Order: sequence, then structure tokens, then C-alpha cells
Amino acid sequence: MRPSDRVLSLPDPAGNAWAIFERARAMQEAGRPVTMLSIGDHDRTTPAALLDQMAQSARAGNTGYAPVPGAAALRAAIAARAARITGAATTPEEVTVTPGGQFALYAALIATLDPGDRVVMIDPYYATYPLTIRAASGTAVICPADPDRGFQPDLAALAEAAKGARALLINSPNNPTGAVYSAETLHGIAEICRKEDLWLISDEVYDSQIWDGKTHLSPRSLPGMAERTIVIGSLSKSHVMTGSRLGWMIAPRAVIAPLWEFQIATTYGVPGYTQDMAMHALTHGDAIAAEVTATYAARRDMAVRLFEGANAVRLSPPEGAMYVMLDVRATGLSGVTFAERLLDTHAIAVMPGEGFGAAAAGHVRVALTVEDAALAEALVTLRRFADAL
Amino acid sequence: MRPSDRVLSLPDPAGNAWAIFERARAMQEAGRPVTMLSIGDHDRTTPAALLDQMAQSARAGNTGYAPVPGAAALRAAIAARAARITGAATTPEEVTVTPGGQFALYAALIATLDPGDRVVMIDPYYATYPLTIRAASGTAVICPADPDRGFQPDLAALAEAAKGARALLINSPNNPTGAVYSAETLHGIAEICRKEDLWLISDEVYDSQIWDGKTHLSPRSLPGMAERTIVIGSLSKSHVMTGSRLGWMIAPRAVIAPLWEFQIATTYGVPGYTQDMAMHALTHGDAIAAEVTATYAARRDMAVRLFEGANAVRLSPPEGAMYVMLDVRATGLSGVTFAERLLDTHAIAVMPGEGFGAAAAGHVRVALTVEDAALAEALVTLRRFADAL
Repeated sequence: MRPSDRVLSLPDPAGNAWAIFERARAMQEAGRPVTMLSIGDHDRTTPAALLDQMAQSARAGNTGYAPVPGAAALRAAIAARAARITGAATTPEEVTVTPGGQFALYAALIATLDPGDRVVMIDPYYATYPLTIRAASGTAVICPADPDRGFQPDLAALAEAAKGARALLINSPNNPTGAVYSAETLHGIAEICRKEDLWLISDEVYDSQIWDGKTHLSPRSLPGMAERTIVIGSLSKSHVMTGSRLGWMIAPRAVIAPLWEFQIATTYGVPGYTQDMAMHALTHGDAIAAEVTATYAARRDMAVRLFEGANAVRLSPPEGAMYVMLDVRATGLSGVTFAERLLDTHAIAVMPGEGFGAAAAGHVRVALTVEDAALAEALVTLRRFADAL
Repeated sequence: MRPSDRVLSLPDPAGNAWAIFERARAMQEAGRPVTMLSIGDHDRTTPAALLDQMAQSARAGNTGYAPVPGAAALRAAIAARAARITGAATTPEEVTVTPGGQFALYAALIATLDPGDRVVMIDPYYATYPLTIRAASGTAVICPADPDRGFQPDLAALAEAAKGARALLINSPNNPTGAVYSAETLHGIAEICRKEDLWLISDEVYDSQIWDGKTHLSPRSLPGMAERTIVIGSLSKSHVMTGSRLGWMIAPRAVIAPLWEFQIATTYGVPGYTQDMAMHALTHGDAIAAEVTATYAARRDMAVRLFEGANAVRLSPPEGAMYVMLDVRATGLSGVTFAERLLDTHAIAVMPGEGFGAAAAGHVRVALTVEDAALAEALVTLRRFADAL
């Protein structure tokens, strides 16, 4: 029997962006040590203080169906966090809890696009975006950001791409580039959204990882934007909770209310004990988040130092998130070929920039997700490998 | 800003099937004791032996991203369970793990229907079915089952409704009716699916709750059906894991493979520690499942006894699942009015049959999900209430 056309159309026609990651995993499973700088998952596990809360909540009996949009107290805590970090007034009724930021993104697309509607996204992009837009039956309009301008979006090109679209999807701090959009860029984006009457879907899952003393500016806090912005958030990166699948969406009530029905039809909520763990992370987890942030800040600084003066590989200091993008165009290799050779010759796995869009061609993304000494060794090896090309 | 038409179209045009349940909850929150016979959640919490496994797995470090379609061992355990219970050969590659059976149902509709495609479902139906079909942009074709024939589907009507459809959705043992489809019914359904070239989506989440010595017959085990059947399963009912959101789908590999992409775009997998808890339930949890089954069997028998010889209310002994359907047509009241008056006068909450489809009009569904003494008292009160009408 033939599955639906829509499910058959999901695989990326350009091929599998994760191919090199899967090959690296296979090498590991075959017993060969590989330094995995390829995926955005932490090199530590979820802190015991959080897991203890989950276990206690479960043992205390919070194991039945939980409120589908999230427990009232958790929604309030997420709203309070948003207000504190972004300055934008936020009520619990503007929050819904999802099993991960990825589901919040999917739900945001369902809530704003009808099938075939256009959504503008900026290249380079987080690798699931094109797939997620296909899964939501949307049409992606891709607007490139120039690597030689720090991967900041080009506002004129964005204004052009936005014509006739229904939504704009951005991600700052950005995975994979590490770009944090400037106030000028975000004001320009807001103006485009207001002028073209667009929804803005703002993926801010890295809002706790911003470097060099910069601060997070959420476009939802800009004039006239709260009514048209959906913010995607998560505890995966800030509190080492990747596997627990706890994210959220902050959106106008006009979106949150009908989405409740969508959540009943799909996930039927998030486990109550996971919500209690998230509640503890938000109300007693600042020290955890600060330590996680400090870890990546230090690794980022180390990476910047280790590539100072490099010729074959250029590192533009990332302003946020847990990655560095390396420009390998001077080697004459594509990101894919560079990554493949690096894996074959030195058992170091990085992600080819091409998996994140054409604008990232000739780059590789390095996730700062191995412990400091191994990271330093891998980066030194990578630099020598590039110099020798 | 206006959300998408598709999200705005999700709420039931016929009104909120859960209205009475929400009113009962509000009464409870206002401090009034209510006997809740209205929802399919257990009166006990998840067994400590399972929660201990989850806590141990989490503390041991299984807190990062888990394999999106489920851990290989868990998929194998689910396949083994299916083979053991249904007799149908099942490989791990025919299994994918989802956050709850509800998500498996949604994914099954996405995988089999393109927007607007017709799916036949039988009335009475589990209350989320019409919503889930709307969420998947399908078109529901409703085929009534006669209460006076034990809510078994009418095969001739089903064959008619199936013409031009793409899929058929069934649920045996059935929520809300307690009907277990006979071998004759299931063979007839299989024949219709083969003849009309339909996918069969078989929701078997109550396969551990079958009464009176009957056994579970999965239509996937019938000739020529494995290639066109998607089975929805879950540990919610069998192992008291409702809140943990652990379900699965068993389907041909042609469905499972592209669905992997859909899962990346939506839920991004189920927590690894939840999967480990599920693994323990499947490999060491038979005693738990047996005890749960025995509890509901005893309550079902008690309910049958308590309504023997009743005139105003008629109980047809359910063959499966954790509910009894009471026929209140002799009282002259609709299910809705009966349920509302019962809640107002005796603080007992049951679900009006109308929330499960027109064929269940003049019925109420009683969930056997309060402890025995309270259940007996509520049922005696309900019988007296009906007699006095």
C-alpha cells in the first residue's frame, strides 16, 4: 500500500544533511573513537537536582494526564521568564507548553500557515526548518544571509522576499552561524512584518547563550510586535534538558486557544513530572543555567583563540549559541568534502555548512559539545589538517 | 493577527464534548466532592517499580536526545509483544515509538491521507477522533453502529461508506461502548479494506482489557492485512502510564521509514528514560498488567450485577475496555440532560453518549476509574436516580 503523498514528500530532495553524523555514529558503534563535534547535545547529562525533582513528582503521584496546554504554574513561570528577559509583558494565557521546541515550531507553522502559504526563512537555517515547513504543508521562501557580513540578514532582500508571504521565521541567536541579530536588523525585520502583515516566528531557544556582554533582544518586545510574534522557547540548551522534550510557545491568545485543540489531537500534553522538573528549572535553576552558559562561553573563547591568525580556516567569533562556524573556502573544498576528509583522516565529526543552506556552503559547523581538553585537541588538529590541505 | 484557517477550524462545531467534565472539575476545585466517572484515567498512579526504572535510567545518564523512532531494544520488545498477542509476525522495523497513542493516531492519518481524503470511522467513536481527522486535514465519513446490536458495525453500511475512501479507522475493544468486534465483523472489515484498497487504522490501546474469557483478535493478523494495517498501541491503559505519553505504531516499513522524517519535524522522539521505563513494563511488567486488568474486570462484573433487572437504565455487559455504557433512553432524557442532572443533584460525573457520536445518543458512559466502594455507591445512586425520573 502506498503511503500518502505528503509523507512521501518529506525526505529532503537534496539528500540527507545528517549523513556524516550517521557515518560517524556508525564508526563509533564499530568501536572506533570519534570526536563528535557534530550535534547540539551537551557533553553532560541533565543535572541531578532536576532529575530528583522529576522522580519526586512522579513518586508523589503526578503520573496521570496533565493539563494539555501545561500546568498553570508552569505557564506562569514561563511567562515570568519571558517578561524578565525580554521586557515584554507576558501572561500565562499567552503560553503553551510543548514536548520540545521542535514541536512548538511545528505547531506555530500549523497555527499561522494554511497549506501552500509562504513562509520566509533565512539561510543558513537550523537543519530541521525546511523539513518542518514541508511537514506543515507550507512553502519555504529562502533569503540568504551573507557570510561576509556576519550572517546578518539583508533587509532589502528580506523585504522583497516577504511580499505575499504569511510568515517570517528567524532564529537569533542563530544555529548554525552563531550570529545574534543586531537591534538594527531586528527593528528592520519588525518593520517588514508590520508592513507586509506577516506573522513572525522567532526561535529563541539559545536566548541564554549570548557572548561578549551582549544582551538578548526579542523582536516580540518591539512596538506592535506582540500581536504578531510567536516565540519558540525550550529548556534543552539552557538547562541541559535536551532528552526531556520540554519547550513552549509564547503567542497571542488568539493562537494559544485554538492550538489547545491541536495539542489534544496530537501530543495530549507533556508528562506532569516533566513539567514539575521544568518548573524547578525555571524557579530554582538559575545557577544551573549560569554554569551551562559559562561552560560554552569559555569554550567559545578558547575556539576563538585557537583560530587566531589561521589562514586556511577562518573563524568569525560567534555572538551566541553553542557552535562556531568555520569558513573553509580558502582550502578550495566544499564543507561536505572538508568534513568527510576530516572524519576519514582524523576521526573528527563536524557538520558541513551545506546542510544548513546554500549560504553556508564552504563552511563547517563545530558544536562546542565535548569537554574542554578534547575540544582543544580536536580544534588544533582541525587547524593543522586545514593548513596541510 | 488572524491564525490559519485550519487551526481556527479545529474546535468542534457541535460544541464541547468535555463541557460536563470541565464543569465537574470546576466544582471539585471549588471544594465540592464529585465522583468522577467521566475520564479514562486510572484511580491509581504509575507503579513504583516502573517509576524507579525511569529514575534510574535518568540518573544513569539517558537524558540526551534519544533515537527518534525509538530505541532498537524497545522497538524489538513492542514487536515481540505484538507477535505474542496477535500471532502476526512483526519486526522492529515495523514499529515506531510515539509520545502516546494519540500521536500515533495523528501520525497514522498523516501517513495515509492526503488533505481532503476520506477516512471512514464508526460511531460511537473515541471523542478525539473527529478532531484528529480535522487536524490531519482528512474528511470523516461516519458509519453508525446500532446500540441494539451491541454496537457492532453494520458491514453492509460500512462497505457502502468505504467507497472512494482511503482509510478505515476502527477501535476494538471500543471506547466508549465496550464492544469487542467479533471475528465475523473483523473478517468483514478486512474484506472491505482489501476490496476497496483501504488502509486500516486499528486502535488497539485496550487490547489488555477483554472480558468474559474472550481473546484479542487483531485485524493485522488476517490474510493480506499486514501490508495495509496500522495498529495503534500504548502503555497508558495496560500499565497505568497515561501521563508518561508512551505509545507506538505498528505499520508496514513503507510507512515507518518516511514517518521518521515526520517525527524529526514534530516530536523529535520520546525521552530515553521514558523508553527505558516502557522497556521494563514490556519485559518485566506482566504482573502489573495482570493486576490492572483484574481490577477492571472485577469492577465491570460489579457494574453488571448492580444493574441487573434495572428498568430505567439498561446496561449491556461490555466485552472490553474500562467503561460501561448505560442506555438511558427509557428515562426520556438525552445523555446530556441525564448527565447534567446527575451531576447537579448527586455530584456524579459521567460522559454523555452524544459526545461520542449520534449513535450513542440517549446513553452515558461510566468510566470504571474510581475505587470499588465509591464506584458501587455511585452506581447504586445512579440507578436510584434513574428510577426516580
